[in-house]
Amino acid sequence: MLKFFDTPPSILSYAAIGGSSEGEGPLGNHFDDINEDEYFGKTTYEQAESELQRQTAALACEKAKLDSSDIDLIIGGDLLNQCVATSFGHRDSATSILGIYSACSTFTEGLLLAGMFCSFGVTQKTLAVTSSHFYSAERQYRMPIEYGGQRAPTTQRTATAAGAVIVTPKEKAPYIRGFKIGRIVDMGVTDAANMGAAMAPAAYDTLSSFFNESGMSPESFDHIVTGDLGQIGSQLLYKLFERDGVDISSRHLDCGCMLYDPERQDVHSGGSGCGCAASVSCAYLLPKLERGEIKNILLAATGALMSPTLTQQGESIPSISHAVWLSHDA
Amino acid sequence: MLKFFDTPPSILSYAAIGGSSEGEGPLGNHFDDINEDEYFGKTTYEQAESELQRQTAALACEKAKLDSSDIDLIIGGDLLNQCVATSFGHRDSATSILGIYSACSTFTEGLLLAGMFCSFGVTQKTLAVTSSHFYSAERQYRMPIEYGGQRAPTTQRTATAAGAVIVTPKEKAPYIRGFKIGRIVDMGVTDAANMGAAMAPAAYDTLSSFFNESGMSPESFDHIVTGDLGQIGSQLLYKLFERDGVDISSRHLDCGCMLYDPERQDVHSGGSGCGCAASVSCAYLLPKLERGEIKNILLAATGALMSPTLTQQGESIPSISHAVWLSHDA
Repeated sequence: MLKFFDTPPSILSYAAIGGSSEGEGPLGNHFDDINEDEYFGKTTYEQAESELQRQTAALACEKAKLDSSDIDLIIGGDLLNQCVATSFGHRDSATSILGIYSACSTFTEGLLLAGMFCSFGVTQKTLAVTSSHFYSAERQYRMPIEYGGQRAPTTQRTATAAGAVIVTPKEKAPYIRGFKIGRIVDMGVTDAANMGAAMAPAAYDTLSSFFNESGMSPESFDHIVTGDLGQIGSQLLYKLFERDGVDISSRHLDCGCMLYDPERQDVHSGGSGCGCAASVSCAYLLPKLERGEIKNILLAATGALMSPTLTQQGESIPSISHAVWLSHDA
Repeated sequence: MLKFFDTPPSILSYAAIGGSSEGEGPLGNHFDDINEDEYFGKTTYEQAESELQRQTAALACEKAKLDSSDIDLIIGGDLLNQCVATSFGHRDSATSILGIYSACSTFTEGLLLAGMFCSFGVTQKTLAVTSSHFYSAERQYRMPIEYGGQRAPTTQRTATAAGAVIVTPKEKAPYIRGFKIGRIVDMGVTDAANMGAAMAPAAYDTLSSFFNESGMSPESFDHIVTGDLGQIGSQLLYKLFERDGVDISSRHLDCGCMLYDPERQDVHSGGSGCGCAASVSCAYLLPKLERGEIKNILLAATGALMSPTLTQQGESIPSISHAVWLSHDA
């Protein structure tokens, strides 16, 4: 499902907040705020992630000199059971809200829906936000971190980070030019400690369909950006494109590979989580697009649609990728 | 966030499938299919719910004489951790898919988004589907059913049911005339065994805002339909409206109260779950609207945005309600 907007909506404002590990990474200085307290002043990790998401949404408003009452719709999501970081993060908000879920591809689902609401004039200012938190994710998906379990080399570190954008009808750069809604791809990977391998075919499916259906090519973009394939998933993506005689490696970036320094930080295959693509986009990519340092990116966040319950039942990992074309020009 | 469509999209087709308890209820004969096997031919309850959702989506296509390849977008949601009934239910589909989550209000979120995609011509045939399953919900939210735990009189029974609609640009009755996206309301209810009480204020907030902002009144509708407030939540809703001097009781229906017979079935306060409002709408309300036996309903599905993790941390239950105006006339 490919759509180019006749009247591309604008990203008016954006904000990214991270935790201490994200602050120590290569993009640390680009974040709007780094919070060294993994609890964000709260008493549980789930409350911490809710607070992280709340603060990030508030900061996106503040940067645009908007009051929360200026926002007519929030579209939010996260990885927690029943998406509670979103529900509890905006519990005190008086704004209409839609919950969305596409695992770590949720950020681009939010971007494309916010773009639709604004391009068609249904809303004037829509805030899209996603978050993830290393500690809330570890105890939900794997083990309480206190167990000190050994992690496989293929694993990724769930980012303690959130990104928020405020989308408006066409106004100024950067613009959301179009999107491709992904379909579920399941190549039978059952190793929940190797999500990059599970997600790479979904990223390939969405990106190659985007190029085929749009008539555009990888060369149309400064960067093809995936969400959180990590080192292993990125290599698999290159191999999948190589079968078509296409080399995307020179212009490919992966948010999961950008967020941490593998030499200095113990993150194995890279970063992941709803907050990974969101924070790297809001901290690093959108400022470059706004200033015109890069003109066009195709952002394909990637999600592993697994649950621990179904992994324990031996199921493979269905994956998905939603892509959004972001541009300096309308 | 209130929106009336300039060109109201149509609901081209709809289908509802239920389990044995739903088949024994007052609406049993209205369902397209009742499956006596709680496993739906699979080996786990989570797989069963995925299969239920898959079958219901397929049946909605079949009733419209459409092939699954005619559908250009699926919008789906459920209550399971990481929304896996949706992801696994459509794992073998080649159709683009967006995951959504608003607890038991997910059906109306799907309806309004599908309406937007079709009204603005972004898609031609969008399928919106939600499901729930008594046994998958019990072991996730409460206890494995084998424990035989006693249930409080305020509890509701999660429906084993799914409803699917296929939305198209304006074509024929019934039509989606407009919608109101709800905001989160949390009145401090911490009893996860009394979700009707937690959700009633959210239904009141959305419905009363709809009337205030639209200039319409309860008399504009044949029925004001809530999702799953149950007996207790419905009484609370009447009390909240009474403060405004408004009596909605004569035209109010609640899907949770309609799905089971409290005299014959041990469902305490009524039914609940993403599949409750979805199946009652698709089995009973949409046919009446299509035939013109009723002209207008305001369907306000209701969701308790709780998770067991946060309930165990002593948190109260944020709730939400998204309303959709469905009509025989465009």
